[in-house]
Amino acid sequence: MGKLVIVGSVNIDSIETPFGSAERIPGGSAPFIGLAASYFQVDSCIISVVGDDFPKDFISLLHSRGIHTDSIDIKEGEKTFFWAGKYHNDMNSRDTLVTELNVLADFNPIVPEAYADAEVVMLGNLHPDIQLSVIEQMKNPKLIVLDTMNFWMDHTLDELLRVIKKVDVITINDEEARQLTGEYSLVNAAKKIHEMGPKFIVIKKGEHGALLFHNEEMFYAPALPLAEVFDPTGAGDTFAGGFTGYMARTGDYSFENMKTAIINGSALASFCVEKFGTDRLVDLSRSELHKRLQQFKNLTQFDIELT
Amino acid sequence: MGKLVIVGSVNIDSIETPFGSAERIPGGSAPFIGLAASYFQVDSCIISVVGDDFPKDFISLLHSRGIHTDSIDIKEGEKTFFWAGKYHNDMNSRDTLVTELNVLADFNPIVPEAYADAEVVMLGNLHPDIQLSVIEQMKNPKLIVLDTMNFWMDHTLDELLRVIKKVDVITINDEEARQLTGEYSLVNAAKKIHEMGPKFIVIKKGEHGALLFHNEEMFYAPALPLAEVFDPTGAGDTFAGGFTGYMARTGDYSFENMKTAIINGSALASFCVEKFGTDRLVDLSRSELHKRLQQFKNLTQFDIELT
Repeated sequence: MGKLVIVGSVNIDSIETPFGSAERIPGGSAPFIGLAASYFQVDSCIISVVGDDFPKDFISLLHSRGIHTDSIDIKEGEKTFFWAGKYHNDMNSRDTLVTELNVLADFNPIVPEAYADAEVVMLGNLHPDIQLSVIEQMKNPKLIVLDTMNFWMDHTLDELLRVIKKVDVITINDEEARQLTGEYSLVNAAKKIHEMGPKFIVIKKGEHGALLFHNEEMFYAPALPLAEVFDPTGAGDTFAGGFTGYMARTGDYSFENMKTAIINGSALASFCVEKFGTDRLVDLSRSELHKRLQQFKNLTQFDIELT
Repeated sequence: MGKLVIVGSVNIDSIETPFGSAERIPGGSAPFIGLAASYFQVDSCIISVVGDDFPKDFISLLHSRGIHTDSIDIKEGEKTFFWAGKYHNDMNSRDTLVTELNVLADFNPIVPEAYADAEVVMLGNLHPDIQLSVIEQMKNPKLIVLDTMNFWMDHTLDELLRVIKKVDVITINDEEARQLTGEYSLVNAAKKIHEMGPKFIVIKKGEHGALLFHNEEMFYAPALPLAEVFDPTGAGDTFAGGFTGYMARTGDYSFENMKTAIINGSALASFCVEKFGTDRLVDLSRSELHKRLQQFKNLTQFDIELT
């Protein structure tokens, strides 16, 4: 069974969408990544920090999904990272209403001894120095995957570039890829990012799917067109969790296998948005996942006859 | 050999892009459609109108590609439809600088007797009444494909809805699909458009590819990610020409075959943007097209293993 180390935030979120609102629900990159990866029966470990206001039963729930949770540090007398946001009608843009770092401000990640030999590492969106510290604690990682965002490009670019240099895969959205490289064409942006370090570049385009670049090779994973998007929070993290979960289980870090990993990530992300927060990732059955993977196959397969 | 009737504009265009400019070159929906369709050895006919300022050698060139051009009416002493536009740096948006309808203002399309029995009809973007007139002249069409744009929704919606009711396939971009239906989700937009008449809805998303909807079925054709887009003019028409050309040659109007037609249209569109105007569609070899079709296959194929 492949081991997967996940570092990321564990939040309390308040979310408002055109369909309703949810007050102070569990969220953060790490739970979405961990729950998505749990569909691949990997031995995963979440490294994070919360305050004593964080619901204990949610940590139990993560644990019941086979996730090692002792490495989630619970700070007595302190408060969990809190985020509040409101999605616009098109669900593609949102306003952040509140960000309270709280315990995350002094987060010092410790990789447990039993997981320092994990082959796959998923670095959720955090300060690049925290991500770097996790990389340095790993003994012999085979696949380090980085998620980040424009905030770190704006405020801690040098630190971010040091992390980017050390990872195998970067997942980034299209606007961030353009910002990071100054290239409008995603093909050219991927080339420049490749020169910064990562051998594989995943560019996420939201409702338009995701592109995987590796040297001269490309793969285009569609997003499943959906009638309703209920809550997009965590979709990118869910994608990353499905991706790394699949990679950790198969232990095959080739471009070909990565295509399948991306489809698995996309399929899980398409479920994530159907309910608030992590709700849909918790009640999903394996047969539902299989059915959706088949939908992705149907969505993209075609015959060509060269005449 | 399948017959294909094409009605559309034949323009003189002046185009400015970040890479250069071209003054008064031949363009318009009909030449792009006709040239793209010519790669499938169909018996096609362009119905259009030009003034005596239009270059005769370009009409000869269309004719040399096997396109029936006697149905392009040349109005002595009058001027060809003229369009001038300037593309922005991102190449996804443009400003129209000049639109002079000229001969197009009184265009009365006449389907030649020899083509009234064509099975496939491609209605290029024009006033809906012109499109309707062509439909009414066809004896027993099997597949009528409509292209249109937001201008007709704004100014001649009733006429447009009458045309939409009579066609089998509509090609429309994502913003236009949203405008036509008031639905943000493309899945819901496609459902509403289906209720207006067309059995098949093709939603073009530019650099993000195209979606085909048919009842509960969906197909997602990616656009080939390109390092450089030189001139996007005519890409949508080229897509439509490749699509209808493939359909007319195969005579198989099923959803499955339409997927392959869309990939052919996307492949031709990816060439179109490499040079100004129709230049790339003229010098393209069949082996180049085959190589690109294979690239589309590589871009989208993956294995899923359900465990």
